[in-house]
Amino acid sequence: MNIEVCFTPNEYKEGDYESHAAVVIDVLRATTSIATAFHHGCRQIVPVEQVQQAFEKKEQLYPEAILAGERKGVLITGFNLGNSPLEYHPEAVEDKTIIMTTTNGTMALNTATKGQKVYAAAFVNAQAVCDKLIEEKRPIVIVCAGTDGRFSVEDAVCAGLIADRLQHHYHLSDKALAVQAMYEAYKENLVEQVGRSSHARYLTELGFAEDIQLCLQQDVFSVAPVFTNGVLKIEE
Amino acid sequence: MNIEVCFTPNEYKEGDYESHAAVVIDVLRATTSIATAFHHGCRQIVPVEQVQQAFEKKEQLYPEAILAGERKGVLITGFNLGNSPLEYHPEAVEDKTIIMTTTNGTMALNTATKGQKVYAAAFVNAQAVCDKLIEEKRPIVIVCAGTDGRFSVEDAVCAGLIADRLQHHYHLSDKALAVQAMYEAYKENLVEQVGRSSHARYLTELGFAEDIQLCLQQDVFSVAPVFTNGVLKIEE
Repeated sequence: MNIEVCFTPNEYKEGDYESHAAVVIDVLRATTSIATAFHHGCRQIVPVEQVQQAFEKKEQLYPEAILAGERKGVLITGFNLGNSPLEYHPEAVEDKTIIMTTTNGTMALNTATKGQKVYAAAFVNAQAVCDKLIEEKRPIVIVCAGTDGRFSVEDAVCAGLIADRLQHHYHLSDKALAVQAMYEAYKENLVEQVGRSSHARYLTELGFAEDIQLCLQQDVFSVAPVFTNGVLKIEE
Repeated sequence: MNIEVCFTPNEYKEGDYESHAAVVIDVLRATTSIATAFHHGCRQIVPVEQVQQAFEKKEQLYPEAILAGERKGVLITGFNLGNSPLEYHPEAVEDKTIIMTTTNGTMALNTATKGQKVYAAAFVNAQAVCDKLIEEKRPIVIVCAGTDGRFSVEDAVCAGLIADRLQHHYHLSDKALAVQAMYEAYKENLVEQVGRSSHARYLTELGFAEDIQLCLQQDVFSVAPVFTNGVLKIEE
């Protein structure tokens, strides 16, 4: 069985991965915030691509929901939460339905879900997702969300962590070997190395330096959120 | 000034890199064989995309030329040389014009040449190309040839060697950081690590294991072939 990696969502071709378990990674910050929310007792997350869709979904389907997400890294007018994992504390998210729209992460989730299970992974819950993937006994495709359609080094390095941990169970494609090598080169000094990336520098400029450190903590949460039928949940 | 990397030729968008110096890398084996040929005194190399074009160019423009290249890794019927650097010894190539067509490398060269200079680089001549790039004082785009349009780890690692050596002169994009990390992870054990790649395994099956070792030698040749106006030459 193979592990394949899409460096950006547009490398994901519908039909190529129907038999695969899919993993979406948006380390800075959507999948980190998603894992944080579930760790803190969130009931479900509904990812949507457009801001307007978030308002519509709330009105039509989830009147009790809170709205979360970002555009250009910052809170959206009329929304309850931004995209910083710091905001997803128990008081904010416990037992809540969250409708979420982010620039890259929610789009990547919607790209990768064509019939199969999609896990939302980040450094904070990498091992929990790896455990589920091994149980799945299926080939794996890891989709890096990237930034505005471009490659992001932090998502690739997190994909590399997952490839590294699963390497004895799977055959690694060239792209899986590549991300594994990136993780190998960065693992001893993750915060400093990822801090050089384009999106980390942008978030630091916006005042979110603390988020970057949080987003690079490994395995602090044991949740593996699964995206099926348009909703992210923790499997019972 | 930036260093940008295209993981495959189809990431190279015409118009994005008009002010850049371009570098094309096809470690296994086209740019390695090109550097080897120039080191051994070849006069010029004319890369063409189709086998038929090679025969036509010889008939119309270069009757004295020898024909070189591969399809699926092996010699083309009616050609003088394959794509193994071992074949590009002085007796075969000195003072010769070579018309060359390979599956990935010559296509990548033709993709990347839209007005600017394109250097043909591999591990064997990396430093020679780095020296020329520093003289150019322009932003750089490194185009990895890949394999049949897919990402190849060996080209990315060679791009990483170049990014690593130039990092103090340039700003590295996320993709440049990524390939630098790959090089960092592989550099101590390049033959074994690259040996895991898809194309290296294919060439080994074809009996070209020795080529892989040759192609991973660093800086054994001091030539920096430049592709301009459809012809590869060494600048005087």
